[in-house]
Amino acid sequence: MRTEFHQQLRALNADLARMCELAGEAVQRATLGLLTVDLEAAERVLTELEVLAALRRDVDRSALALLARQAPVASDLRAVVAAVHIASDADRMGGLAAHIARIVRRRHPDPVLPNDVVGQFSEMGSLAVDLAEDAASVIIDGDPVRASRIRDDDEAMNDMHRKLFVAVMSPQWTHGVPAAIDLVLLGRFYERFADHAVAIAARVLFRSTGDTTRDLGQ
Amino acid sequence: MRTEFHQQLRALNADLARMCELAGEAVQRATLGLLTVDLEAAERVLTELEVLAALRRDVDRSALALLARQAPVASDLRAVVAAVHIASDADRMGGLAAHIARIVRRRHPDPVLPNDVVGQFSEMGSLAVDLAEDAASVIIDGDPVRASRIRDDDEAMNDMHRKLFVAVMSPQWTHGVPAAIDLVLLGRFYERFADHAVAIAARVLFRSTGDTTRDLGQ
Repeated sequence: MRTEFHQQLRALNADLARMCELAGEAVQRATLGLLTVDLEAAERVLTELEVLAALRRDVDRSALALLARQAPVASDLRAVVAAVHIASDADRMGGLAAHIARIVRRRHPDPVLPNDVVGQFSEMGSLAVDLAEDAASVIIDGDPVRASRIRDDDEAMNDMHRKLFVAVMSPQWTHGVPAAIDLVLLGRFYERFADHAVAIAARVLFRSTGDTTRDLGQ
Repeated sequence: MRTEFHQQLRALNADLARMCELAGEAVQRATLGLLTVDLEAAERVLTELEVLAALRRDVDRSALALLARQAPVASDLRAVVAAVHIASDADRMGGLAAHIARIVRRRHPDPVLPNDVVGQFSEMGSLAVDLAEDAASVIIDGDPVRASRIRDDDEAMNDMHRKLFVAVMSPQWTHGVPAAIDLVLLGRFYERFADHAVAIAARVLFRSTGDTTRDLGQ
């Protein structure tokens, strides 16, 4: 019974890791669409997210089945409840990549980004992909090195988000209101993407203690 | 055993409803701070959210205890898992009210809102309060009238958000980039607040069927 439970839990975690990878691929493709003004890439983000949504429904169903049939307790129970939260976070990461893709689509064939911030968004995109991949890795093996990289990358993302905000708000900003608004929204989507990766890592690392109030920074 | 379970589930739902009410009070006070340039109101939002956070930890603990001790199945199990999601949504609604309060604090003693959008934000604030109160009510008794009002209020919120976006993006916008950015972010916070109320109502109404993919509009 317990062996069967742990097998099913491993399968559940493999699905969660796959969800993070799909969210990483989505934000990578959305960033490509943003940087290279590629409508097709943006459209593909939106269609491929259906796979992520389907996987989320599978995870929710598997978690309910595990709870109903195996009635886990203690750390096993917390692992299943954590899985339900992680699925929700990974799904939302995909949703944020979709928001980025929709901005690309809305402005097409015009570029969203003024030239002087292309490098900054390329960097934010790379950070987001790393965060998603590291979250996947932490789910599978709880690797503390990857977990600590998530914390560092999240801080780097917050720094870039703040700098973007300052640049756009400054009197030297010459690209007008619509561009400023697109950039602030995009910055927020990347920053929220990072927050969800942090939440996933925190859930994995602290599910054994049941303490969900701590975060990775403590 | 089953009677005890249902008693505990009712207590859990009462806590969830209270969380929605607290989120409603938070967004009401944050909106007051925004409309009347009231720093004290904004600060109070931030301190009072600690009550919401504490209640969320209680709910998460109670849900785990219910799962571990009573091992519910079928609709009882889905109700407990729904509670965990609802707690997360209500907590996030409080977080969004806090974001509104932080914008008020950042600009103080200057007002955030140009005069010509004060009415619009007053309306968005009222909608947000109604949405939180209706979500609380739906949790307690599944009232379909309240649930359908949630759907209508969410649509009204989306309309106001879209109009705000159009106004700020138009060449007639005369209040500059920083004001435009504040307004777009505020609009997004109110709109996300509404989305979470919709998610809560959908979880309550469909928890008996286990179908979490449907939304209130279908």
